Amino acid sequence: MNEADFLAALRRLPLHPGARGLVDDGAVIDAAPLVVTTDTLVEGVHFLPHDPPADVAWKLVATNLSDLAAKGALVEGVMLNYPLGEADWDRAFLDGLGVVLNRFHVRLIGGDTVSLRGPRVLTLTAFGRDAPAPARDGARDGDALWVTGTIGDAGLGLAIAMRGYGPIALRDAYRRPHPRLAEGRVLGPIVHAMMDVSDGLLIDAARMARASGLAVSIDLDAVPLSAEARAHGGEGRAARLAAATAGDDYELLFALPADTTPPVPATRLGVFGMGDGLSLHDGQGPVPLPPRLGFEHTTGH
Amino acid sequence: MNEADFLAALRRLPLHPGARGLVDDGAVIDAAPLVVTTDTLVEGVHFLPHDPPADVAWKLVATNLSDLAAKGALVEGVMLNYPLGEADWDRAFLDGLGVVLNRFHVRLIGGDTVSLRGPRVLTLTAFGRDAPAPARDGARDGDALWVTGTIGDAGLGLAIAMRGYGPIALRDAYRRPHPRLAEGRVLGPIVHAMMDVSDGLLIDAARMARASGLAVSIDLDAVPLSAEARAHGGEGRAARLAAATAGDDYELLFALPADTTPPVPATRLGVFGMGDGLSLHDGQGPVPLPPRLGFEHTTGH
Repeated sequence: MNEADFLAALRRLPLHPGARGLVDDGAVIDAAPLVVTTDTLVEGVHFLPHDPPADVAWKLVATNLSDLAAKGALVEGVMLNYPLGEADWDRAFLDGLGVVLNRFHVRLIGGDTVSLRGPRVLTLTAFGRDAPAPARDGARDGDALWVTGTIGDAGLGLAIAMRGYGPIALRDAYRRPHPRLAEGRVLGPIVHAMMDVSDGLLIDAARMARASGLAVSIDLDAVPLSAEARAHGGEGRAARLAAATAGDDYELLFALPADTTPPVPATRLGVFGMGDGLSLHDGQGPVPLPPRLGFEHTTGH
Repeated sequence: MNEADFLAALRRLPLHPGARGLVDDGAVIDAAPLVVTTDTLVEGVHFLPHDPPADVAWKLVATNLSDLAAKGALVEGVMLNYPLGEADWDRAFLDGLGVVLNRFHVRLIGGDTVSLRGPRVLTLTAFGRDAPAPARDGARDGDALWVTGTIGDAGLGLAIAMRGYGPIALRDAYRRPHPRLAEGRVLGPIVHAMMDVSDGLLIDAARMARASGLAVSIDLDAVPLSAEARAHGGEGRAARLAAATAGDDYELLFALPADTTPPVPATRLGVFGMGDGLSLHDGQGPVPLPPRLGFEHTTGH
């Protein structure tokens, strides 16, 4: 599509009042403090070349909203940096963008379009307000580590998406993650530390522990697997290690005092303590750390 | 470079207090209202593959600051979405990033890094505060059209950069534009409309007129050419048309009441009137519009 057609289509999506109808070079956001987060998705790295464009739109928005969820924020809006290309792909992306923006009540604030030959590179920047904005470095000695939802579905879903067949529920967990916005609003004011699980449960838990100057011990048997994941991938030690290092879960990982029960459904995974590093155990005893705890390259910062 | 090394280098740059040391997925900005603008630069489209990486960093920051200048904003900070690649290029980019951030007193708020094979795609999002935020649609019948600085240097500079030799001052106008931040602060509260000249003087003036529901008439002889541009490219009608359609000038284009003299050095180019469209004239009479008024693909929105 050309820029004029693309912009005309964007103007039919829900626009933030500060977007000024997308005719200007700058937008105005009148909320403070603002939480800001940005993620770039690269074709062939963060999504597959044959992934449906509507699912790429979903994932681009959902992964950024997940970062806002981890801050306990209300979503103020998003800005999109988009590489114009094949008209069919662009139109399908726009359709999907409308779906995900409406699904999560998100308004478009602005962005930029460019011409690009090569792998698609899409950037979204998301703005949130009214956020308690817990950091990842606030866990305390004795805190319990919790996670919402289930872990590993997206990892299995990626393999299914690459192969082209398999359980749809798992494939969709990879292509259409659901940011835990409501849970983040409830958890934000009471957690000591919180982040979303994007690169893998183990690497993200290790990051939270390191940032907090603590060690963390995780019970691998506690890692919550969905019924679909158990049926498709099993539930032994290897399956749990695969789930805990696969990434793309977009669940909320958080630290709470040992005597606090979370006000939303969640699973207790382990405990923070003095020292440093991550240790694993299960019903059979200590579990050696796998060589790779998750993905190193996808972290927003 | 790998992500850890790149992040360690970023942490040695001036950081915004809301950046939280770049260890988190979200940053916090406590200023409202905020002006937000974003631009993506693509290798081979917005910069040349052999442009020095430090100059690419300069241009990426400067073009975004130019959008903030057009809003009369104070710079709050920037977020960077960066494709990690060859270590030498990345290191030279970081060096240049430090130079341009320090030069314009800009702090880094956050961003994202990705792995990318293919043309480099760099996105910067800039935040400004305390902005009168004039729009481009506020020009009134009878207003005069003004521009800061000189026009066309960057266009000649692009040709020089592609050829590899020629006047350095022109080449640097292309590679290292200077955002008119101070001028924007002074002009912001008094202009009826303002924007920066990024895609070409004529196309940008036509956009301001169209957004304002007016016609605009420009005296081509008034288009301000630098001494270097006159010496290198001449100053006849063809040279002026080339300058006025070349783009990348990053000067401020603004509408003022006919009886107002701008408080900063600027050149009066023409006048807004009832009707629509752009018309050109010079000392020889009416000038037919060139087939291309500027670039269509680089507009932030």
